[in-house]
Amino acid sequence: MELTKSNHLDDAVCPVARTADIISGKWTLLIIRDLAAGVKRFNQLERSLNGISPKTLSERLRSLEEEGIITRRTFAEVPPRVEYSLTEKGLDLVYVIESMRSYGKRWLCNQ
Amino acid sequence: MELTKSNHLDDAVCPVARTADIISGKWTLLIIRDLAAGVKRFNQLERSLNGISPKTLSERLRSLEEEGIITRRTFAEVPPRVEYSLTEKGLDLVYVIESMRSYGKRWLCNQ
Repeated sequence: MELTKSNHLDDAVCPVARTADIISGKWTLLIIRDLAAGVKRFNQLERSLNGISPKTLSERLRSLEEEGIITRRTFAEVPPRVEYSLTEKGLDLVYVIESMRSYGKRWLCNQ
Repeated sequence: MELTKSNHLDDAVCPVARTADIISGKWTLLIIRDLAAGVKRFNQLERSLNGISPKTLSERLRSLEEEGIITRRTFAEVPPRVEYSLTEKGLDLVYVIESMRSYGKRWLCNQ
């Protein structure tokens, strides 16, 4: 077992640090968890993320969309329907989060 | 693919957030990377982590030892020899870091 040894320290740190950045943030994690189970509407996310304000949820969804982790589809219905789902980049992140979760449960959070 | 759904939001967040906490920090990551390749002495780490001060290296090593991620063995020789290695908790962390690294390289750092 050996972590990749890089000539440049930054090359060794950047990918891990940037991934940690994206994952840090309680609501972000929970939104990704919810969408990992399938496509969701705004209201479904709001109900599932007990305690989140609509403003915060909108902001987090927008930032995840800008980051390319989720996609937003609107349907021209009455009332308009908006659905969110994970992109391939978002789905890949689920594996990372799960590996962190299983480490944390085993070693850090005594569950 | 489904992230574990927990009744308590904190249960869903804690293990991931605490793992992210441990991993955040450039030198911590690099120390774990170096020790993943095998037992190292203080001087070897200092040389490998180009640019780290002895004071910072000592602090990081002490904090990783307190966290149970590395162990420190001293040998009663002249001059005294001190060796550092990963514990089981530290070795497990290597897998998490590698999964973050490979995600970051694919999606975030364009390498």
